[in-house]
Amino acid sequence: MVQCPPASVGMSVSEIDTPALVIDLDIYERNLDKMAQMMKSSGKIFRPHAKMHKSPLVADDQIKRGAIGVCCQKLSEAEIMADGGISDILITNEIVAPGKLDRVAELSKKIKLGICVDNLDATQALNKACARKNTNIRVLIEIDVGGNRCGVTNSTNTVALAQFIINSSHLNFGGLQAYHGAAQHLRTPKERADTVSSAAKIVSETKKALSDANIDCELVTGGGTGTFMHDKDYNEWDELQCGSYAFMDADYGKNQLSEIENGTGFEHSLFIQTMVMSTNQPNMVICDAGLKAIASDSGNPLIKGFEHLNYRMTSDEHGNIDLDDNTTFNLGDRVLLIPGHCDPNVNLYDWCVGVRNGIVEKIWPVAARGAIS
Amino acid sequence: MVQCPPASVGMSVSEIDTPALVIDLDIYERNLDKMAQMMKSSGKIFRPHAKMHKSPLVADDQIKRGAIGVCCQKLSEAEIMADGGISDILITNEIVAPGKLDRVAELSKKIKLGICVDNLDATQALNKACARKNTNIRVLIEIDVGGNRCGVTNSTNTVALAQFIINSSHLNFGGLQAYHGAAQHLRTPKERADTVSSAAKIVSETKKALSDANIDCELVTGGGTGTFMHDKDYNEWDELQCGSYAFMDADYGKNQLSEIENGTGFEHSLFIQTMVMSTNQPNMVICDAGLKAIASDSGNPLIKGFEHLNYRMTSDEHGNIDLDDNTTFNLGDRVLLIPGHCDPNVNLYDWCVGVRNGIVEKIWPVAARGAIS
Repeated sequence: MVQCPPASVGMSVSEIDTPALVIDLDIYERNLDKMAQMMKSSGKIFRPHAKMHKSPLVADDQIKRGAIGVCCQKLSEAEIMADGGISDILITNEIVAPGKLDRVAELSKKIKLGICVDNLDATQALNKACARKNTNIRVLIEIDVGGNRCGVTNSTNTVALAQFIINSSHLNFGGLQAYHGAAQHLRTPKERADTVSSAAKIVSETKKALSDANIDCELVTGGGTGTFMHDKDYNEWDELQCGSYAFMDADYGKNQLSEIENGTGFEHSLFIQTMVMSTNQPNMVICDAGLKAIASDSGNPLIKGFEHLNYRMTSDEHGNIDLDDNTTFNLGDRVLLIPGHCDPNVNLYDWCVGVRNGIVEKIWPVAARGAIS
Repeated sequence: MVQCPPASVGMSVSEIDTPALVIDLDIYERNLDKMAQMMKSSGKIFRPHAKMHKSPLVADDQIKRGAIGVCCQKLSEAEIMADGGISDILITNEIVAPGKLDRVAELSKKIKLGICVDNLDATQALNKACARKNTNIRVLIEIDVGGNRCGVTNSTNTVALAQFIINSSHLNFGGLQAYHGAAQHLRTPKERADTVSSAAKIVSETKKALSDANIDCELVTGGGTGTFMHDKDYNEWDELQCGSYAFMDADYGKNQLSEIENGTGFEHSLFIQTMVMSTNQPNMVICDAGLKAIASDSGNPLIKGFEHLNYRMTSDEHGNIDLDDNTTFNLGDRVLLIPGHCDPNVNLYDWCVGVRNGIVEKIWPVAARGAIS
C-alpha cells in the first residue's frame, strides 16, 4: 500500500525520514539535458524507457526536452503513464493473456499506442481484441538480436509475421524492435561495441528480407544507456530507448568509467539516504536500509564519498558498513548509497525526494511502482 | 503507488492477472495450526514477526491461534499494524531519528508497545520523547548473541543500560531481545543447533549479570523459523518470534528438508504465479516475472512441479526457464514459482491472492508493503 511521503517541501535533507529515495535535481537535470543534446546531434528519435523511473512527471521532463514519448515494459505501467498525461507510448514487450489484450485495445483508443509481438497466435488474438473494441494499433515485431530472450529468431518468420500483421484488419505494421538487453551491462566498451555490431547485422538482414518481400519497415527501435554511444552511429536504428541515464546506478557507473572521467558520461543523481542506527560493533556500523530498501541483484550499493568501504545488506532492514582505520560514523549519521541497479530499486519506493542545495524542492510519486503486470 | 488487485473473489486461478502473489490457503492454515500447536507444547509465548507478511489480517489469523501479538521491524510497519487493529506490538529494532522517537511515543499511547534499544544516548532520547508525550513505554535491551549486527556486546554495558532504563522516568525495563539473524539461514541443523547453544550461553551470562545487579529480567525474546526447533528447548528464551513459517520460501525449505520429509516441517504456501510469454528460443521459454516480481537476494526461485529446471531472472520483467528434453511449456501457460526469500518478495506486492481448490477465495492487501522507515 502507499506509504506517507518521507519529507515535505522546504525541509532540510537532514530531516528526511530514512531510508528514502533521494534525487539530486541539479545532476538529474544535467543528465536529461546531456542526453537530449546527444540525441539531437544523432538525428535519432528519442523514446526513453519509463520502466526505470515509473513516473509521468519524469516522462514529462524528458518530453519537454525533445523525447517523442516513452517506452513501457508492462501494460499496467502504460495505463498509469497514460493516466498521468503521457500520450505516446510504446509497450516494448509481448502480451499474451486475453484479459490484458482487451485492456491494450482499450488503451489504444485513448492514446497513441504501440506494442511488440513475436508470435503469430498472440498477434491474431491481439487483432481480435482490437476488432472487438473497434480500434487499430501499431504493432512492431520484436526480433532477437542476440539477447536470447523474447523476439523472432529468423527473418523468414519475421517476414511471415509482418505479412500477417499487414493482412490483419486492426493492426498496423510499425517496424521492428531490436533491443539487446544483456549488451547493456557488458563491462568493456569493446564488448558492447562488438555486440551492437552483430545486432546491427541481424537488423540489416531482417530489413533486407522485409524489403525483398516488398514490406516497408517504417522504423527500428532499440538501444539503452549501456549501448547508445554505439547504437547512435548505426543507420539500422531510427529510435533509441535509453532510460537509466536520468538516474544512473553503480553498475552503469562501472561501464562509463572513462566517459564519466572525461565529462561525456552520466552522473549519479539517484541515492538512498540511510541512517546509522547501531554502533556497538568494533569494525562496523549498522544502517537502517536492508534488502527491502535496496535492490540486490547487481551487488551491494556504493557509499557516496566512501566508495572504498563495503555496504552489506545483512537483513531485510539492516545494512552493515565495514569500517577501515580512518573512518568513523556516529549514531544518527546520514549516509547516501548509490544503488547497484536503478530500475528495481526505484520500484521499492512510493516517493522520490528531489533535493537541491540541501533542501527538499519537490517530491513526486513513483506512480507505477509495483505496476509489474 | 497501489495497484489494482490482480484477481477477484470467485475467479479461477487461471484468470489471475500475472505476475501475482498467490497463497494456498489450505497449506497456509496448516502451517499456522502446526506452529500454534508446537508453541503451545513448548510453553513459550508466541509473538510472530509481521515483517514477513506485513498484513494485519494475517496477524489476526495468528492471534486467533494463540499468538500474544506481533513483532514489527520498522516503526511505519508498527503504525500500520496498529491501524489494522493489532493492539500488542514489539518493535524488534533500534530507532534513533528524533522525528521517529516522537512517533514511537505517540503510538505507545494507543497500543501495548515495546521497543528495543542498544545505546544509552538513544535510550535517553526515547525517554525524553515519551516524557514530552506523557507516556511510558516497555523497553527491551537487544544483546548481540553472535550475529554481529545490532545489540549490546557485553554484559557490563547491558547492566548499565538496564540500570539507566530503570532510573528513567518514562521507560519500563522489559527484559532482553536475543535474536541471531544469521543463524536462521545456516544450512545444516547442526550448525543452527551449535549457534543457538552459544547464543543461549550469552543470554545466560547476561541474565546472571543482571541478577547479580539485582535487576529483574522479566522476559527474553528471540528465535525464528530457522532455529525455533532448537530455541524452544532452551529455558533462556521466554518468547519466540518466528514469522516465515506461515508462507515459507525456497531457502527455508532447503533448511527443513528432513523435517518436511517426516511431516514436522512447514510447507510452501507462497507462490508467484507467472505466465509464459515467449517461446521462440530453442531450449528455453520466457515468463513475465523478473527482478521486480521476484526478490533475488536468496537466489533463483524454484518452479513448483519442475524443481529440476532453472528459472533465471533475465531482466526486470522477464524470467527464462531453461528446458530439458522432457519438458515443454506453451505460450500462455501459468507457472508457480517458490521465491527464494519470502520477506522481501512479499514486500514487492500490494495484494495476496488467497486460493483454495483452484478458486480465488480471498484477497488481502499487503498493508505495510513499502513500510521500510
